[in-house]
Amino acid sequence: MTELHNLTEDHAARRRAAKVMPNGVYGHQSAISLLEGFPQFIQRTEGCRVWDLDGNEYVDFLCGYGIVLLGYHHPLVDAAIEHQMRLADCSNGPGLVMVELAELLVETVDHADWAIFAKNGTDATTTCVTIARSGTGRRKVLVAEGAYHGSAPWCTPRMNGVVDEDRAHLIKFRYNDTASFHAAVEAAGTDMAAVIVSPFRHDARHDQELVDPDFARAVRRACDDKDAALILDDVRCGFRIAHGGSWEPIGVKPDLSAWSKAIANGQPLAAVLGNERFREGATKIFVTGSFWFSAVPMAAAIATIHALRDEGALQKIIAAGDRLRTGLAAQASSYGLTINQTGPSQMPLLTFAGDVDLMRADLWARTTAMNGAYLHPWHNWFMMAAHTADDVDRALLATDAGFAAVRDKFGAD
Amino acid sequence: MTELHNLTEDHAARRRAAKVMPNGVYGHQSAISLLEGFPQFIQRTEGCRVWDLDGNEYVDFLCGYGIVLLGYHHPLVDAAIEHQMRLADCSNGPGLVMVELAELLVETVDHADWAIFAKNGTDATTTCVTIARSGTGRRKVLVAEGAYHGSAPWCTPRMNGVVDEDRAHLIKFRYNDTASFHAAVEAAGTDMAAVIVSPFRHDARHDQELVDPDFARAVRRACDDKDAALILDDVRCGFRIAHGGSWEPIGVKPDLSAWSKAIANGQPLAAVLGNERFREGATKIFVTGSFWFSAVPMAAAIATIHALRDEGALQKIIAAGDRLRTGLAAQASSYGLTINQTGPSQMPLLTFAGDVDLMRADLWARTTAMNGAYLHPWHNWFMMAAHTADDVDRALLATDAGFAAVRDKFGAD
Repeated sequence: MTELHNLTEDHAARRRAAKVMPNGVYGHQSAISLLEGFPQFIQRTEGCRVWDLDGNEYVDFLCGYGIVLLGYHHPLVDAAIEHQMRLADCSNGPGLVMVELAELLVETVDHADWAIFAKNGTDATTTCVTIARSGTGRRKVLVAEGAYHGSAPWCTPRMNGVVDEDRAHLIKFRYNDTASFHAAVEAAGTDMAAVIVSPFRHDARHDQELVDPDFARAVRRACDDKDAALILDDVRCGFRIAHGGSWEPIGVKPDLSAWSKAIANGQPLAAVLGNERFREGATKIFVTGSFWFSAVPMAAAIATIHALRDEGALQKIIAAGDRLRTGLAAQASSYGLTINQTGPSQMPLLTFAGDVDLMRADLWARTTAMNGAYLHPWHNWFMMAAHTADDVDRALLATDAGFAAVRDKFGAD
Repeated sequence: MTELHNLTEDHAARRRAAKVMPNGVYGHQSAISLLEGFPQFIQRTEGCRVWDLDGNEYVDFLCGYGIVLLGYHHPLVDAAIEHQMRLADCSNGPGLVMVELAELLVETVDHADWAIFAKNGTDATTTCVTIARSGTGRRKVLVAEGAYHGSAPWCTPRMNGVVDEDRAHLIKFRYNDTASFHAAVEAAGTDMAAVIVSPFRHDARHDQELVDPDFARAVRRACDDKDAALILDDVRCGFRIAHGGSWEPIGVKPDLSAWSKAIANGQPLAAVLGNERFREGATKIFVTGSFWFSAVPMAAAIATIHALRDEGALQKIIAAGDRLRTGLAAQASSYGLTINQTGPSQMPLLTFAGDVDLMRADLWARTTAMNGAYLHPWHNWFMMAAHTADDVDRALLATDAGFAAVRDKFGAD
């Protein structure tokens, strides 16, 4: 199928982009690091399919880097968007939907007694840290090495333009390593404001690692002992792992949690959820944004959370992820290639054994893209409820071509 | 008309909000500081009118705190939104509209050679500072005392949850005070990365102050001498003062400018515009957000910028502002009240002489709201192209009631 995959329009648009944007498209959606084969621009979306500027169609397993949970253009979410748009979106005050959404989240997410809404995941993680400092009067924040918590100066993975003071009170530990965590707690001494932690380890360019429940419990205990805030960064995972927050299945409650991505099925929204202990700390800070009170994304979030339950979306998402994983394992084995599949079924990732420079992963993902499935070489994927068994099977035709290309170039293991 | 102004539903919603949000609605849209008379929630918007939960109608002079430029539900912007929504909004890559919008901005705004898009004004100002530091390799940033540049820890007006290090490299000067500015430049020494400055002084709770062109030129010269970035924070003013950026009329070009608010007539979007000198600094930083690449707000921005020119929107906005100002002056005079009207016609503000505790302003704005015009007691207002002479005249009936209430309570001057 490769010869049908033409990216002429996409490349023309990239050349125009490079003139009027620094280096072209930037941030996590820059396709430069994806190399040839992937489109930079997306023209159309529907269900679990996306189309590029040249009309190539892909079964999408990135879901807009996690923002789509049910499927693109989900009818109930779209209806909620249209209805709210006709009334009001952003104005001098929020709509009643803001109260309704806060009530729904408090009812849905176990640890939450209140909500604050924002736009970006970075808004939510930064606000959590600010509330923790406001509530405790302390400064130190414990963060896992290599974890992504946003792109503000205190957390962006690239240090250009960042000053040392932006990171002055961060103390690092290793995810799932209780000894290194306790050393960080020790280092914080009496100045420990918070620990910020992801529901599982989903650092880019690494195999994913599920959380060790004993580690999570040790974090909870240390926060209790030190009267510090346990902040769960659920921006990437929220509502894909469990209805009540991603640590609900292991029974560990954070004090504060940061949400964004999938909560409104693609509409721009972020949220901080918190418990009674940090309510006062939250009332004392000043955070806001011109569009933080827009009603349309809030209406979309209410529809998304209802559909998530009413349509058994999580079960569909898990079933699709399991089918994909099973198919990939069988294909790799048939080509004599050793792969490692990690993370929960809802957020899978595949790596090749010994692929230190990611050459195999790049070739595999690129060939797969050219054959009609959008899977990332080194960032975790996302499953959506719109992935049917047929969609997964269609994608497996593309991944088969990917494995064949890897075997042809690098040989079997 | 006061007895017809019922806020029963609004107050019921506030009570619900206080349970599930810290202190209820927070940030700049909290109506707590507006006291009785103003609604917290907005149910419907159309043209220049907004309606609250109780069905009260207001001629709106806040424009969603500046985000609405043409009018709510402008037909061409709404059509662009609907068209783009049917295609794609947020996905694995931006739409071609991102390139088209960047090209349009570079063509429209004088100093701009490239664009970066984001969601919040705070994203844009913070990214400007980061680019200035990346591009110069220096750290100090000069900021006017009392200026609002966003709500991140480095700039939020409230210090709860902020640590000293967040402000480590800020040096303050007084707006329009060239001597104090030069002292700040001196203090920065060889470590000066940037000056960030608003197009005019629009600090809340103060009379507004237009920029002194000599001051602006002194800032430009100092940045040239020191090889530092002049950052114009055009978040609040952008496209309301001039098509080419708010310092276009005085002929002073910034290196970087921060935009948000009105650029997409209410859709969530922010932008950083920069010149060639800072392109390389911009390529080196990592900033991103889950929804920064959403196509719908970009399509809305393109339609907004075209309508701004094609419909002579700025002239309409200025004419409406002038009519309002003339009417207010005549009314105040007829009641024997001394007022001060400041800022450009597009972004007016009224204060009462000797009103140190803002008691007169509060009573005036509240009474005006209860009579059907939404005007703020201490934050600048915004005019939109949808304000017709009739709308302004309707609003003047409400402000007349406001002046009468002030005269009755505080007496004539």
